[in-house]
Amino acid sequence: MSTAEPLATTPLKVAVLGCGTVGTEVVRLLTDSADDLRARIGRPLELIGIAVRRAGRERPGIDPALLTTDAEKLVSSGADLVIEVIGGIEPARNLILTALKNGASVVTANKALLAQDGSTLFAAAEEAGVDLYFEAAVAGAIPIIRPLRESLVGDEITAVIGIVNGTTNFILDKMDTSGAGFAETLTEAQDLGYAEPDPTADIEGFDAAAKAAILSSLAFHTRVTSADVYREGITDVTSTDIASAKAMGCVVKAVAICQLTGPDANGERAVSVRTHPAMIPRHHPLASVGGAYNAVFVESKSAGRLMFYGPGAGGPPTASAVLGDVVTVARNRLRGAAGPGESSYAARPISSIDTVITRYHLSLEVTDVAGVLATIANCFADHGVSIQTVRQQGRGADAQLVIVTHPAPDAALSATVESLRELDVVVEVTSVMRVEGE
Amino acid sequence: MSTAEPLATTPLKVAVLGCGTVGTEVVRLLTDSADDLRARIGRPLELIGIAVRRAGRERPGIDPALLTTDAEKLVSSGADLVIEVIGGIEPARNLILTALKNGASVVTANKALLAQDGSTLFAAAEEAGVDLYFEAAVAGAIPIIRPLRESLVGDEITAVIGIVNGTTNFILDKMDTSGAGFAETLTEAQDLGYAEPDPTADIEGFDAAAKAAILSSLAFHTRVTSADVYREGITDVTSTDIASAKAMGCVVKAVAICQLTGPDANGERAVSVRTHPAMIPRHHPLASVGGAYNAVFVESKSAGRLMFYGPGAGGPPTASAVLGDVVTVARNRLRGAAGPGESSYAARPISSIDTVITRYHLSLEVTDVAGVLATIANCFADHGVSIQTVRQQGRGADAQLVIVTHPAPDAALSATVESLRELDVVVEVTSVMRVEGE
Repeated sequence: MSTAEPLATTPLKVAVLGCGTVGTEVVRLLTDSADDLRARIGRPLELIGIAVRRAGRERPGIDPALLTTDAEKLVSSGADLVIEVIGGIEPARNLILTALKNGASVVTANKALLAQDGSTLFAAAEEAGVDLYFEAAVAGAIPIIRPLRESLVGDEITAVIGIVNGTTNFILDKMDTSGAGFAETLTEAQDLGYAEPDPTADIEGFDAAAKAAILSSLAFHTRVTSADVYREGITDVTSTDIASAKAMGCVVKAVAICQLTGPDANGERAVSVRTHPAMIPRHHPLASVGGAYNAVFVESKSAGRLMFYGPGAGGPPTASAVLGDVVTVARNRLRGAAGPGESSYAARPISSIDTVITRYHLSLEVTDVAGVLATIANCFADHGVSIQTVRQQGRGADAQLVIVTHPAPDAALSATVESLRELDVVVEVTSVMRVEGE
Repeated sequence: MSTAEPLATTPLKVAVLGCGTVGTEVVRLLTDSADDLRARIGRPLELIGIAVRRAGRERPGIDPALLTTDAEKLVSSGADLVIEVIGGIEPARNLILTALKNGASVVTANKALLAQDGSTLFAAAEEAGVDLYFEAAVAGAIPIIRPLRESLVGDEITAVIGIVNGTTNFILDKMDTSGAGFAETLTEAQDLGYAEPDPTADIEGFDAAAKAAILSSLAFHTRVTSADVYREGITDVTSTDIASAKAMGCVVKAVAICQLTGPDANGERAVSVRTHPAMIPRHHPLASVGGAYNAVFVESKSAGRLMFYGPGAGGPPTASAVLGDVVTVARNRLRGAAGPGESSYAARPISSIDTVITRYHLSLEVTDVAGVLATIANCFADHGVSIQTVRQQGRGADAQLVIVTHPAPDAALSATVESLRELDVVVEVTSVMRVEGE
């Protein structure tokens, strides 16, 4: 303490909403790291209450006197900082709005809410002259919000490609190493605690879509909501897809892709945002992201290609991101300042998935390879889709064609798939997957 | 522009000091991206002057009317923001101090100055109530300063290990793939523009040491200067070292290592900072960082292991980092705020290299392997150093022993090497290198 000035002693009042995995860890850190936090902020933090749904539950290490079921009262009781880790839309949304209106700065990890109605929250924060920070909402402890919102704000970001859902990455990684199918691997992930009992938000891509909306809003200075994000889950990924990917030097990953497209003939640029499983070349930095880890790859005009990697979920990593925001927001408050607000001036249009230029990998079961290749090639040509490679597997009744296309508009590719399904020589289109990251 | 309020029109005045590779690119971006910068800041930026050493030189794309050789006058002429990209200690130091005293916020890429005398600059910024930002000082475009200073400020960082010098990484990577020696590879790097005509700052580790000082100051809330950093360059790395590393599944990298050590018997923790070549296991995330790329690996208590990767140098990437700071600092200025200042409250002691616990890889030329192993093993045991593996290469007069130790204090390891050199059975200690990253 030799170099520090005497610390001001009036504490900043902190209210915590939610006391699940993340909330418990946040409360623990606020207590255990109190001295360091005070030194870093310049003032002590005082925890004034923790809002929970059920008061009676046993919560080891948490002072029961701090617990309350009246969250509405807690956010109106003069807190300087409100930490929201309840998740979901309501009551989180109304509690945050009440907190902001009462002059509290808010730190939240709530990706679903930010992706659905971030603008309302940002407007309320702006009006009250307080902060709304949310580093924990995307990719857990990996600093990605601040880099996009501040470090790269002088640059032109052209793409953000992320593995932002640990559950689906864990499942796909397991399928890749074990050769097992989706359902079996999901059960294993649930047993190990890597997937929720109701895994819908993860495996159907809702969680990744929310994160993609947040990332693209920041990267492209444009309001993007979850409804703008094209979404496909991983439930249809088969062990055959994964084996096919291996055969072409790729790995299957659930990716969130945010791209600045164009300029078109009128000089207009648009935003394309989607999340779906995709085949990624094994030499791509994202390909080696294993287990429940997350990674975000950013391409920008001047900075070039950057990658951010780390644990994407879990109590302590998420709490680390929350606490970083708490210190920043507390410092801002003591200086009478506020950090960056919403930046949506570019207001770029959102592209339909139809116009996105991508590549497809297809597996077709066909009647006989030698006789049908010309018919199939014509079908691709009719839709203006160029074939990059064709590989034959098996013979006669078991004949399979594996086709990888050149980049083409997604609409042309899906129309090709529709037409292929109607061909007599095609028994079944067994797999269709986008190829990304080249 | 549909959602934006009418923009205020009074410009913020910007002065640029230095017009080399980075400065030229900064000026170009200030001009080409003026509309975006205005929208992101909320005010236009007005470039009021560029200080250069020689006025007569041809500078394509730069308005000659902006050039001045009177930098002192430029920083005293009412600039809101001063961008310093001259580098070196003087005149940069005095110009920055003058700018701060005159109420300008400063954005700098000057690692040498920050590592030598950062505290003076921070104190001047604090006194004037303005900002001192320096994202470009370490690892080019990779956001690492802001993540350490803000995102992870609620966590306890225990280690930062970085490949922070692109020149040495390029040389070692080339030596690894080509099998060529150091001198030859340096010449090649110079021909390709990856190494300076005078490469001392890079190959002797001065550049990496400055960056290590900055990173450890931020990570450990302690003043660390370049003088505190233990430093070894890469000039003694041989193709034999690189082949030895390969044989044990490692790669040789020049690393900057910042560690929080302890707690010792008195509960004290210290800071250890060093830069030197080291053998890194090929499966470590830093091992695959190739060419002139940089990467920084961070370990912290709650967040776990994070990695940041990207281009570490060059005009456009460095300018991207500078412009990100310019926007942040300009926004702060319009809100009457300032970002984080120096945080050195922890004031931890700096460990001597002697006490650092590390591992050594040694190659010894010995008279005859069978007869001498016991003598050599005794020599290690006498210094309390435990051997992990011994590998024999060649026979008789060409006999080589390759030894890897268990972790031990550096002083014990270097004393062992001294004793080995005095043994009759040891013809030569041909290589000594630390093994890191496990």
